Amino acid sequence: MATLSDIGVAAAINILSAFAFFLAFAILRIQPVNDRVYFPKWYLKGLRCSPLANGAFVSKFVNLDFRSYARFLNWMPAALQMPEPELIDHAGLDSAVYLRIYLLGLKIFVPIAFLAFTIMVPVNWTNNTLEHSGLTFSDIDKLSISNIPNGSLRKPKSGKQLGFFPTPRFWTHLVMAYAFTFWTCYVLKREYEIVASMRLHFLASEQRRPDQFTVLVKNVPPDPDESISELVEHFFLVNHPEHYLSHQVVYNANKLSELVNEKKKIQNWLDYYQNKSERNPSKRPLLKMGFLGLWGQSVDAVEFYKAKTERLSRDEINFYLLRSSKISDHGGWGRRAAISLEREKITSNPKSIMAAAFVSFKTRWGAAVCAQTQQCRNPTIWLTEWAPEPRDVYWENLSIPFVFLTIRRLIVAVAFFFLTFFFVIPIAIVQSLANIESIEKALPFLKPIIEVKVIKSFIQGFLPGIALKIFLLFLPTILMIMSKFEGFISLSALERRSADMVSISFDLILSVVNLGYSINCSLRISTAKPIPKTIGASIPMKATFFITYIMVDGWAGVAAEILRLKPLIIYHLKNFFLVKTEKDREEAMDPGTIGFNTGEPQIQLYFLLGLVYAIVTPILLPFIIVFFALAYVVFRHQIINVYNQEYESAAAYWPDVHLRIIVALIVSQLLLMGLLSTKEAASSTPLLITLPVLTIWFHRFCKGRYEPAFVRNPLQEAMMKDTLERAREPNLNLKGFLQNAYIHPVFKSADDDKIDVAMEEWEEEPSLIATKRTSKRSTPLSSKRGGSSFSSPEANKERSKP
Amino acid sequence: MATLSDIGVAAAINILSAFAFFLAFAILRIQPVNDRVYFPKWYLKGLRCSPLANGAFVSKFVNLDFRSYARFLNWMPAALQMPEPELIDHAGLDSAVYLRIYLLGLKIFVPIAFLAFTIMVPVNWTNNTLEHSGLTFSDIDKLSISNIPNGSLRKPKSGKQLGFFPTPRFWTHLVMAYAFTFWTCYVLKREYEIVASMRLHFLASEQRRPDQFTVLVKNVPPDPDESISELVEHFFLVNHPEHYLSHQVVYNANKLSELVNEKKKIQNWLDYYQNKSERNPSKRPLLKMGFLGLWGQSVDAVEFYKAKTERLSRDEINFYLLRSSKISDHGGWGRRAAISLEREKITSNPKSIMAAAFVSFKTRWGAAVCAQTQQCRNPTIWLTEWAPEPRDVYWENLSIPFVFLTIRRLIVAVAFFFLTFFFVIPIAIVQSLANIESIEKALPFLKPIIEVKVIKSFIQGFLPGIALKIFLLFLPTILMIMSKFEGFISLSALERRSADMVSISFDLILSVVNLGYSINCSLRISTAKPIPKTIGASIPMKATFFITYIMVDGWAGVAAEILRLKPLIIYHLKNFFLVKTEKDREEAMDPGTIGFNTGEPQIQLYFLLGLVYAIVTPILLPFIIVFFALAYVVFRHQIINVYNQEYESAAAYWPDVHLRIIVALIVSQLLLMGLLSTKEAASSTPLLITLPVLTIWFHRFCKGRYEPAFVRNPLQEAMMKDTLERAREPNLNLKGFLQNAYIHPVFKSADDDKIDVAMEEWEEEPSLIATKRTSKRSTPLSSKRGGSSFSSPEANKERSKP
Repeated sequence: MATLSDIGVAAAINILSAFAFFLAFAILRIQPVNDRVYFPKWYLKGLRCSPLANGAFVSKFVNLDFRSYARFLNWMPAALQMPEPELIDHAGLDSAVYLRIYLLGLKIFVPIAFLAFTIMVPVNWTNNTLEHSGLTFSDIDKLSISNIPNGSLRKPKSGKQLGFFPTPRFWTHLVMAYAFTFWTCYVLKREYEIVASMRLHFLASEQRRPDQFTVLVKNVPPDPDESISELVEHFFLVNHPEHYLSHQVVYNANKLSELVNEKKKIQNWLDYYQNKSERNPSKRPLLKMGFLGLWGQSVDAVEFYKAKTERLSRDEINFYLLRSSKISDHGGWGRRAAISLEREKITSNPKSIMAAAFVSFKTRWGAAVCAQTQQCRNPTIWLTEWAPEPRDVYWENLSIPFVFLTIRRLIVAVAFFFLTFFFVIPIAIVQSLANIESIEKALPFLKPIIEVKVIKSFIQGFLPGIALKIFLLFLPTILMIMSKFEGFISLSALERRSADMVSISFDLILSVVNLGYSINCSLRISTAKPIPKTIGASIPMKATFFITYIMVDGWAGVAAEILRLKPLIIYHLKNFFLVKTEKDREEAMDPGTIGFNTGEPQIQLYFLLGLVYAIVTPILLPFIIVFFALAYVVFRHQIINVYNQEYESAAAYWPDVHLRIIVALIVSQLLLMGLLSTKEAASSTPLLITLPVLTIWFHRFCKGRYEPAFVRNPLQEAMMKDTLERAREPNLNLKGFLQNAYIHPVFKSADDDKIDVAMEEWEEEPSLIATKRTSKRSTPLSSKRGGSSFSSPEANKERSKP
Repeated sequence: MATLSDIGVAAAINILSAFAFFLAFAILRIQPVNDRVYFPKWYLKGLRCSPLANGAFVSKFVNLDFRSYARFLNWMPAALQMPEPELIDHAGLDSAVYLRIYLLGLKIFVPIAFLAFTIMVPVNWTNNTLEHSGLTFSDIDKLSISNIPNGSLRKPKSGKQLGFFPTPRFWTHLVMAYAFTFWTCYVLKREYEIVASMRLHFLASEQRRPDQFTVLVKNVPPDPDESISELVEHFFLVNHPEHYLSHQVVYNANKLSELVNEKKKIQNWLDYYQNKSERNPSKRPLLKMGFLGLWGQSVDAVEFYKAKTERLSRDEINFYLLRSSKISDHGGWGRRAAISLEREKITSNPKSIMAAAFVSFKTRWGAAVCAQTQQCRNPTIWLTEWAPEPRDVYWENLSIPFVFLTIRRLIVAVAFFFLTFFFVIPIAIVQSLANIESIEKALPFLKPIIEVKVIKSFIQGFLPGIALKIFLLFLPTILMIMSKFEGFISLSALERRSADMVSISFDLILSVVNLGYSINCSLRISTAKPIPKTIGASIPMKATFFITYIMVDGWAGVAAEILRLKPLIIYHLKNFFLVKTEKDREEAMDPGTIGFNTGEPQIQLYFLLGLVYAIVTPILLPFIIVFFALAYVVFRHQIINVYNQEYESAAAYWPDVHLRIIVALIVSQLLLMGLLSTKEAASSTPLLITLPVLTIWFHRFCKGRYEPAFVRNPLQEAMMKDTLERAREPNLNLKGFLQNAYIHPVFKSADDDKIDVAMEEWEEEPSLIATKRTSKRSTPLSSKRGGSSFSSPEANKERSKP
């Protein structure tokens, strides 16, 4: 068992490293050369321009204003200053609500910790069960439920104890279990209510967006006489005659995407060699054609890559021609002669048209109706659902037929089962590391080294957390690949699904490890030792392992997040080797996203740990509270200054977050029941069984009450917006607005020039809401909702027309 | 354990009683006096008229044609003759599909039984494990898996057996488990497909019905300024401007229903005494006013009940006046003077108007859209769903608010949990009856009586089945009350829900009893005896208990069903005491319904038993097959000649039936896994674990593929029917058609005269499809779909207008 001093060492290491990260961040962020790494969000919004452009040469790269070094922690209050409505405007509702999850953690655990420390800890402390148990234990364990005597072993002296009721001290824990559950449910309900109303308000105040009018139709049945496009048009003209406006078929552009990516890579090499030759014009950069560029015939690198780019551009055009309607607009590309030849060939190829389409309606009402109803007698064709935002579409999965989807789901379910199953094994190994005695038993020759006090502390206090952290790093990546395979059609759904699976694994792992451990203990003890005193005692002691984990992952890890080491290095490499123009520099910036699929399960793990150990080992709670507070500040700073969300789902993930906390609550209740039965207080089980039942009922109540706000689209709202719009803009050109909204991004990325033009136009729009931050540009720009601004340049262009 | 001779005794008793029932039925049904008991369906359809009307006096009551007694079983082929499409026309799709469940049982179990008896039984028989086990056993048990040696005890002589694989003989059972699962799934899928297409075809060929155009709106929010009626009208005029037609608010007429029922009872007494005095005019029937009519002041009974009826009629009018619009039509009621006084009072009372309404639309498309979408931002108000058929509405539950619904659901869930929990106890007691040794142990003084051979056989072979049957008789009634409390708003939903809960109890009871028994065995044996040989052997022996149950419930019980003893007695009592006119006699008929909530779970129990014991004790299968065949014939006869369904849900219950067979399949797989692990063939568990996974996946696949056909209403269909109708009947008065469709039945039952008129009109409609049965009336009448004919007399009247 880890002792108090082990935990002390771990705490010291982690607090020190966290401070080191903060210090490094404080110094790095005020260097002008790093400005684009630490404030990319403001660059993207056009509210900040490069500090390299003006001033003396040295001060372009290094900050010489030494006063600014003194205030190295002042980003923290700055991050907290921005009020929530402004934050929603600035970063979107997804990010703002994401921060509320951290706040939710504080709201749940601060009162619970307060109760636990004023009532439960004194009850635990004033026993001496552990001292009599013969187990090794530390002072921390004296605060936990381990220190409570077992149910049937000690009867009150009055003799009135009938064996049905738990001992009076366990009554404290039972009442606390109820109190914690009710408090958690109360906070959850209030939060669900607030988030639901935030979402509804956000959606109601949204500007016109293409996805409000558009429905995604999947599994269009093949027809020998008509093309997909004609088929879709006829079907909707017949079945939604008063509402159908237009549609956009989906092209299979996966191969084109590959080409574009390859071209980008080669373009980077070309830029690299061009830069090189410009800096040193006397020496032409050469390239060896052999294995890995180590030997073989030498060629001029610039010429080589130029030829390669040109060849790819030509291939690209062939795909590009799929969008035959747009042909005439583009002249900046390769050989014109090839175009007219290839054109006939590709547009007549129906294989690259998928059996899916984006159908747009004249009114939001019409789209809401179509998205929520079944179109056809056969429920596996003509499937309609709300179109995701154009940015949010995951194009690769758009054309998977229904049968394959169910088969894929089966495969993923089986794979997930085995993955979780096999993840328990390494986790169990890591867990055993927490117990140094077992290492000594397994590897006796290590004994002299391990017995050194510092190394022992390090192994017990620091290593298990790190090891678990490394294991868990892989999980989200694997699960993301699995969800992609499963066939979801939007990025937000992918991330939600992946986060879902990660959380399930956490729940399972924690339950299995805890329960398995206790069963293992009880078996070993019941066969070997006659006294079952030790069983219930050893489970809460696992808590020390999780304390070290929280410090590694939740303290030092969160502090490292703010430093952005990887983007920092990559940006400087790119900046040095590839950047030629200011536009290239803009592209070298990598603001990144919150990463819902990695971040949210992490929070859920803390909810799970907090709820499970709140009754058993309340000493864990302060560590979790520190995590929530620290992470809230850090992520608020990052969301304001760094991250740029790829999509805006208007907090559609909240039902999942809510459900997972409910699941954590139920897991904690079941584990408590298991624990108390090993503590020979099995008679308390009937008193506890109502808790999960009530919790499940609470979940169903919340689901019925609030979930529809996140899933369905009320017709009343749609009708209201339609009516308003009709009154305000009677001759709106909606068809033009929607025409090119849902076009595969590779077709768009080809229109670089057009995008630039569109950007210019957008930036010259009059400001609607003035931000409190002073813009460094001469003209103050509007801070737009993340949702609508980057969604479709063409759409923006249309909007700026009269 | 029951021996072969015990089972023989039971079989003899049950076969004899089944034959007795059939014989009694054959004699009773050809007596003209019973004609209305055994052929009410034909009377209701107007295809048969009373044989009492013509012929000699004696032959009115007793059949004197002795030739007809010789053909006493000829109803069986007659029942099978009617082809399915005609059956659907005659009795509705619900009944026709209900019969398919019995057929499904035959389709599943006949091939399984064939396989089991050709492959598995020889494998079981050619062992002698039981003879060496020291257990008491019968020849029946030699056919079961009990006779297979335990996994690890007997190794093949070659010595190559590694312990990982089950013994070769268990391989047979594993392969059979897979074969049975695949066969069941295959049959289920085909059946789902057929039923889905039958339903779609039925719905598509349906005539115009009010529920096609109508949506039920619940939880209309209260408004201080507007009445419910105005509120509904405004809301739908705004949000469905192009489709809204009219609406009908729901009145709280529960109290009026009570009054009407009471009045009917008193009217019966009045009729009784009037008949009495007519038959014996010299003696006025007197009534004592004291306790239970035993003493006290005597009054003239006829006068007394006449006064009482009049008083009630006046009360009734007060409620009736709620429907102010219809006031002027009714003149057949009590004192006219009271009407105008009460009228102002009641129509201005908003308390009797519920927060619900039936909203009708101009097109089926509009109704389909409204039923499938969410109307309002707040998901707990303005809830819309398809209106059930007018006959199908369960009026009492129409106004329960959302919060109460969730609380009621919680209460029912908890009550159901405890109910099932406490049902296991009597079932376990009954089960122990199957084991005569345990009775002797518990009650040693009974030993001399029990040891008499015949009594022993009776107790072991007959009593347990009867006892279980009696216990299970109460379950559906209790659960029906619980589902009513839960707040479903249509009879069909109530019956489905109730059937659902009964099936869950069966599954739970069977699992708990079997598993608990085996755990109990294994515990007792592992502590007491060192040889675990006996564990796996005793479970399959339980099968003999279920064999006796099947014979009591499935053979004799089904045969008793056809006799209709209770309706027979009640009809003759009513006929003798109350009937004055032919119309009264019509009312005295009680055709009854199938009783989905009692009948379907019974079938499910047989599916469960068949699937669970198919591998373990295949000898059970022939008994089940006999049940399915017998019940199919009996119920086909009853559906054709007797039952008159209260509603037509177009087989909406099929997804539930499908799901429950899937659950039974999974229960059977899990029990098999448990059994094999006690047989020390635990190594086979990994080979079996894929079965439930595959089965669950199969269920999800079927759910996605076919369930929407039972739940949602495709817009394409709706649009098609709308277009057709518009072309056929361009100036249809839809508003008139829908006006009075959704009016509480007590308001309607008041319009007795009107109904008669409507009936007449309906009966004079030209026939559309000629039935093969010869009508005894002079004009042949159309055999109408059960669904539309009785739904609303006013509607029928409207329809017959030009």
